[in-house]
Amino acid sequence: MSDDLVISECFARDGLQNEPDFLATQTKVDLLDRFSAIGFPRVEATSYSNPKAVPQFADATEVLRGMTRREGAFYKATCANLRAVERANADHDAGRGANEISLLASASEAHSQKNLRSSKAEQWQRIADMAKAAGGRYRIIGSLSVVFGCPFETYVDPGVVAEDCARFLDLGVRHVSLGDTTGLATPQSVKSLWRRLETELPDLTLIAHFHDSRGSGLANCVAALEAGCCWFDSSIGGVGGHPSKIKYGGGFTGNVATEDLVNLFEAMGVDTGLDLDALMTTVEFCEKVLGRPLYGRTARTGLSPLIKEKTYA
Amino acid sequence: MSDDLVISECFARDGLQNEPDFLATQTKVDLLDRFSAIGFPRVEATSYSNPKAVPQFADATEVLRGMTRREGAFYKATCANLRAVERANADHDAGRGANEISLLASASEAHSQKNLRSSKAEQWQRIADMAKAAGGRYRIIGSLSVVFGCPFETYVDPGVVAEDCARFLDLGVRHVSLGDTTGLATPQSVKSLWRRLETELPDLTLIAHFHDSRGSGLANCVAALEAGCCWFDSSIGGVGGHPSKIKYGGGFTGNVATEDLVNLFEAMGVDTGLDLDALMTTVEFCEKVLGRPLYGRTARTGLSPLIKEKTYA
Repeated sequence: MSDDLVISECFARDGLQNEPDFLATQTKVDLLDRFSAIGFPRVEATSYSNPKAVPQFADATEVLRGMTRREGAFYKATCANLRAVERANADHDAGRGANEISLLASASEAHSQKNLRSSKAEQWQRIADMAKAAGGRYRIIGSLSVVFGCPFETYVDPGVVAEDCARFLDLGVRHVSLGDTTGLATPQSVKSLWRRLETELPDLTLIAHFHDSRGSGLANCVAALEAGCCWFDSSIGGVGGHPSKIKYGGGFTGNVATEDLVNLFEAMGVDTGLDLDALMTTVEFCEKVLGRPLYGRTARTGLSPLIKEKTYA
Repeated sequence: MSDDLVISECFARDGLQNEPDFLATQTKVDLLDRFSAIGFPRVEATSYSNPKAVPQFADATEVLRGMTRREGAFYKATCANLRAVERANADHDAGRGANEISLLASASEAHSQKNLRSSKAEQWQRIADMAKAAGGRYRIIGSLSVVFGCPFETYVDPGVVAEDCARFLDLGVRHVSLGDTTGLATPQSVKSLWRRLETELPDLTLIAHFHDSRGSGLANCVAALEAGCCWFDSSIGGVGGHPSKIKYGGGFTGNVATEDLVNLFEAMGVDTGLDLDALMTTVEFCEKVLGRPLYGRTARTGLSPLIKEKTYA
């Protein structure tokens, strides 16, 4: 399992998305270079959002141009609409773009309406248009929200999630991130869904994208790991979630903290393939960049001494 | 399983132990009355520590005298030495004492020396003396520290833990709390130890007492639950840990947050038997009492809406 573990560092996109102050482009580049040096096989680099809607990512092109790339790693840019894919294509075709993009859908109708301002049917038409426009340039990630429960509709039928995943697959999208957008997943619902989707859609690679809104993010990651999941999204310091403009009834919505996830997996004997010392100094750097202590416990306490002694069961 | 779940609220003792400011006795009584009203079957009420060493608990007798008791519930006082047991006995025999006490040991020699200022051998002699002095008045909890790893010795042999548990049992102590003092347990080491002890010492009731020092507390509670554990220690707001005077290399050392534990278990369909609305208002009360936001995520976000809809798998 260890050779296959793929942790994606989401700090620079999902993490920064909520930050009110624009972070200097060079700082973003420094962050991404550190993430590459740590050895992350996937990095969320930026978003081709409308700069008027999300000024933080107005420098998407410059960030992708400025950063150093590690061979074999994937650098993702989020694409919210067709215009975003066209911008991604221009940067890609100029030789300095992303090599991974994500296309967003919601598992519930209400969340699609509120978050994407379109019905699910409309959004799936857009996704088809975007996938076509991408023209085989990228590894495309289907990013599905509210998979384990919706703040507006509460229960989300796993059968609907399976249909949405099948739609992605029909469009040639072979990687789907299953988003627990407001922290409603449980170890049971995670294992149950993983097993169902691996049976029904064996060609799909599933990505655990769990928010820690109710403190259960890491427990759900362990459940996913036990169900065979090897792909995880997390963010240094546990920052991120959703743009503050979109209200889900408030509350804490950060991602699983990378340092806590990596500490636990390594303590379990699961090799993450990452440079742990470089990770911990980068955690400090991220806190310095945002000017405040973040949410990771391991940032305060340090890595488990059991990791170096390899004494796990 | 649901009928048997026993969650102990540790805020008033383990939680307050690190608070530098003395909390008014009446406030402590108000807290304990709220914990009783929520329905906790066990409550850590206070500690018979030396008032000079831990001024926070100088009012142990008054707190126990002032609080309302729920029938069938256990109210614990921590006893660090023989003098503490004698004080507990005096209050008990006057009809207003604790009906549960805890006696502390460390699984590692180095932690025993640093935390208890005595060798393990010396401490076990003291425990024997204390258990004898208790004279059958209480349900005694054996409280074992650094069970899953030690900040000074790193690896702790599960065989040594099993020996320590057997010593408790030999002294008539049938409940042992397995403390992950600095957050070094993993779901694997938890399950492995639970299975071993349930096989070797089937008469013992095991209590999961996990600190969230590295963010893995809830994941480890789920592992314990899956291994058959029904007894859990947690603290509202995730406060607590160890007296700040004893340095373990610093870091975050709080308990698992009760609101996050209860939210996840209830979302999994595990009935905690607690009044969830009363719990959430008491979480607010605890934050008001300490004058700061605490560490529970659910305090910020609210209980999962899936709990009321009973839609868990």
